[in-house]
Amino acid sequence: MRTMHVIGIGAGDPDQVTVAAIKAMNTVDVFFVIDKGAQKQELVDVRTRILREHVPTDHRVVEFTDPPRDRAPSDYDDAVDTWHDLRARMLADLVDAEPSESVGAMLVWGDPSLYDSTLRVVERVRAVLHSPFEVSVIPGVTSPSALAAAHRIVMNRVGEPVLTTTGRRLRDEGLPDGVTAAVVMLDSDCSFRSLPGWHVWWGANLGTPGEVTLAGPVDDIGDEIVARRAALRAEAGWVMDTYLVHRP
Amino acid sequence: MRTMHVIGIGAGDPDQVTVAAIKAMNTVDVFFVIDKGAQKQELVDVRTRILREHVPTDHRVVEFTDPPRDRAPSDYDDAVDTWHDLRARMLADLVDAEPSESVGAMLVWGDPSLYDSTLRVVERVRAVLHSPFEVSVIPGVTSPSALAAAHRIVMNRVGEPVLTTTGRRLRDEGLPDGVTAAVVMLDSDCSFRSLPGWHVWWGANLGTPGEVTLAGPVDDIGDEIVARRAALRAEAGWVMDTYLVHRP
Repeated sequence: MRTMHVIGIGAGDPDQVTVAAIKAMNTVDVFFVIDKGAQKQELVDVRTRILREHVPTDHRVVEFTDPPRDRAPSDYDDAVDTWHDLRARMLADLVDAEPSESVGAMLVWGDPSLYDSTLRVVERVRAVLHSPFEVSVIPGVTSPSALAAAHRIVMNRVGEPVLTTTGRRLRDEGLPDGVTAAVVMLDSDCSFRSLPGWHVWWGANLGTPGEVTLAGPVDDIGDEIVARRAALRAEAGWVMDTYLVHRP
Repeated sequence: MRTMHVIGIGAGDPDQVTVAAIKAMNTVDVFFVIDKGAQKQELVDVRTRILREHVPTDHRVVEFTDPPRDRAPSDYDDAVDTWHDLRARMLADLVDAEPSESVGAMLVWGDPSLYDSTLRVVERVRAVLHSPFEVSVIPGVTSPSALAAAHRIVMNRVGEPVLTTTGRRLRDEGLPDGVTAAVVMLDSDCSFRSLPGWHVWWGANLGTPGEVTLAGPVDDIGDEIVARRAALRAEAGWVMDTYLVHRP
């Protein structure tokens, strides 16, 4: 294989794809798609719709099943490392089977630079293969940007920083001193409940027909968010959500 | 006026505009454009190229001159507040002169939710006018995402947070304890020099023909970045840059 494009496709709305992403997708021979299991079929459908709408050129789609991952490991970094390795070995076999002039791509929700393993896995694939390919990255709209747009707000308070973090970090370590605004991703525990007195702007399934947004003081709407999130997850089998918190 | 679209147009590459942004731009009667002075003509040119390429529909462009701003105020928040108010009063007069069924738009570099005053100014305009318009926000690709894509890296270290902050904050207060990765915007002083031992990924004029990227240990390439930035600024009269730093 000659080139691998790693392409951000936005946070869920098919129209959030950029012109650069569409141009890159139309040079691609083979899309490598990670199959996350039947319960995420709607996510696969959005990706299929993007390809059907924007990529009239001939292309193949190669699916591979995500390796199992230890969701409650004793050593988090070690578990992630093992999982990246398994993914990289699966992908390396597929890339190695491609013709040498082939152009490949992987599509990433949001932007490949924020809490996504694709670039780390692709670097490992390059390291193990004899004839490494070029990597090109097309940035996309992040889910924090989509969240802020849905609420029509600015993420940062005037002149102040914003921390982007994960639910696990917020739960285990709280926020560093001096942080007055934070965007939290990958939080299945609604850890904003550890921030009484703060204001929260929450969004689930942003940019999809099932988009839900809620905003208000954590003390007033925290329980409502927990309930809405649980209901969405129970109904579809999955939910993608993120939120912004500001200290008052 | 009926609606104001606040549209993120990406970090500099005209192809970084999204399909949603193009669709919104094609419903617009009038684009309100802030004139930042002759030295930023190239930035105006990119915006003009986006409109020419993607907006075949009839539209007007109304320019207004950015009010003067105190760049070294004794009270930063107060100076920003005054400046937002001046901008809002100028814009309110222009909006008020529009027909009641008119659709307006403002184009924002990167994404309107990150260190940009447009949404705050538009909220003030709504507050002072008698018949407030609807506000719609179209998210865009941020300059941090464009930076990470140019370097083909992930912003966060595995499972760790990323702080997005300004040069002024980094210079005045350093980074909060526990922050191991930070994206710094609006930094004319190259304040990464206060982080010896860290690694820096820098990018200037990302996505434009004059894009420059440099990466390495702060101790090794700090001086080179300072020199390249000064040269770019001297040549064009302006430079747009941002950088990511990781603690080793």
